[in-house]
Amino acid sequence: MTTTAPAALITLDWGTTALRAYLQAADGAILDSHTAMQGIMSLDGASFADVLTANAGGWVHAHGPLPVLLSGMIGSRQGWVEARYVPTPAGLADLAAGLTPVPDAPKPFGPVAIVPGLLRDDADAPDVIRGEEVEVFGALHRLQRTDGLFVLPGTHSKWVRVEAGRITHFSTYMTGDVFAALKGHTILGRMMQGEAHSAEGFRRGVLAARGLKGPGSLLGRLFSVRTLGLTGRLGEEDSADFLSGLLIGAELSDATHGREPFTLVANPGLTERYAAAADVLGLAHTQAPAGSAPAGQFAVARAAGLI
Amino acid sequence: MTTTAPAALITLDWGTTALRAYLQAADGAILDSHTAMQGIMSLDGASFADVLTANAGGWVHAHGPLPVLLSGMIGSRQGWVEARYVPTPAGLADLAAGLTPVPDAPKPFGPVAIVPGLLRDDADAPDVIRGEEVEVFGALHRLQRTDGLFVLPGTHSKWVRVEAGRITHFSTYMTGDVFAALKGHTILGRMMQGEAHSAEGFRRGVLAARGLKGPGSLLGRLFSVRTLGLTGRLGEEDSADFLSGLLIGAELSDATHGREPFTLVANPGLTERYAAAADVLGLAHTQAPAGSAPAGQFAVARAAGLI
Repeated sequence: MTTTAPAALITLDWGTTALRAYLQAADGAILDSHTAMQGIMSLDGASFADVLTANAGGWVHAHGPLPVLLSGMIGSRQGWVEARYVPTPAGLADLAAGLTPVPDAPKPFGPVAIVPGLLRDDADAPDVIRGEEVEVFGALHRLQRTDGLFVLPGTHSKWVRVEAGRITHFSTYMTGDVFAALKGHTILGRMMQGEAHSAEGFRRGVLAARGLKGPGSLLGRLFSVRTLGLTGRLGEEDSADFLSGLLIGAELSDATHGREPFTLVANPGLTERYAAAADVLGLAHTQAPAGSAPAGQFAVARAAGLI
Repeated sequence: MTTTAPAALITLDWGTTALRAYLQAADGAILDSHTAMQGIMSLDGASFADVLTANAGGWVHAHGPLPVLLSGMIGSRQGWVEARYVPTPAGLADLAAGLTPVPDAPKPFGPVAIVPGLLRDDADAPDVIRGEEVEVFGALHRLQRTDGLFVLPGTHSKWVRVEAGRITHFSTYMTGDVFAALKGHTILGRMMQGEAHSAEGFRRGVLAARGLKGPGSLLGRLFSVRTLGLTGRLGEEDSADFLSGLLIGAELSDATHGREPFTLVANPGLTERYAAAADVLGLAHTQAPAGSAPAGQFAVARAAGLI
């Protein structure tokens, strides 16, 4: 996209392990961006203000005191300022109304604010999200849609339902976290060899997930990753991806109720894996274009009157 | 039990981390026993023959060259001699016919043999068991039964179905292994405090399991262990037992199909936990008397003509 609009906004998608900073024009074009491995848990003693200046200071020196919008874990208890959780259902206007200002914003930046997270306040199984909801609004904007089921694969995958432009429900699946714990710290990891991706192992794992019945069956089926190896039916180079396919297949079946179309957002490596699993299960899916995070941040900033 | 029958058999239940040795009379009475932390993975360089002599040598010096029967992981690839797997369905006679002799049995012991494991040779989800099947035959003998569903709780719980005196099916649930990996190596462990057992946390976890629907729902529900804490609904001192209840509840519902009565065998600490979960779920259950392992070993030895 070429643009003649002036620089108007700085946004940072600031997570646990990394940050991505964007210089955005008044029409939402991305004028500049960069990534640093300076997530909130990897600051090496630097202050949040120092890190913001190091990553975006050049932009304000060139373009004046632009407003800054932050989203992600920077708003958690371990972040710069704890930003509240807004209850679902919530639309862009609710996020915009819930912005938390950062009181000690460094000069010469304009006002710095943090996007709130969302809380699904179910008494038995509440859920929280912080950052991915902004990406969903960005994906909606890019796709010109106001409804749908979206997934943001990750260590903790987030499944987000949007109706009439508002997030009405979301659920967290700990699939990636569980995979790493099972591979690294149970008997299953002992038979896993090789680093190369095994598409065949993954496909077989997804098919195994399709055969599961009932909530506890996963705890039973896990052991077959080992016994299929013991009986010569699964190679050691295939078993890690078999486990990955089993878990992702179970997640997909549950989150889509086995039939609902969905849209993949962000995380290219994992997205490919989720798309492959959906194909095995015969689940319709589309892929949001890249850049959902800054597009969502821009939409929140506009709804809040920052630009 | 008092007995006047002479010593006739030495048996060892020899697992990964510990061994339990028994001196048995010709009528199955236990004349002497002891436990050592000398499982096959904790031998500190000693040979299997040395460890047998250290733990049972006194008995043969006192009573002559008694036959020795070993069961458990001592028959695995990492054990003394690899014992075969017998396919299901299998009864005592099949185990007895499949004994593997130890060729270099130390003097002055009589013949030393290892009980085979069982293999359920399902192409999609095969399963193996090594040691627990002997305990099931012991429980059947002690209970004077020939049918039923039995569970041996452990790092890997084994559910064993017996029909007309033969094991027709069994399934392994990795519940304990999964619990330890999730507690120790995912985000869930960060909010878990305290070592004291929380019966209330456990009960709430079992109830949460009852509400699960579908095989992937567990991956989604796990995150609520964290969010219930974040929203002030679950104390940090309750959350480890909540997770334990969630997993054991899911296992019990699946293995019993939500309704089938079962019998708990061995492992007193875990047995109490499984019984509590079954009570919450309204599942009928009974408890086998202690001593199933040596009773099962005795039954195999008699079926094999060793005594």
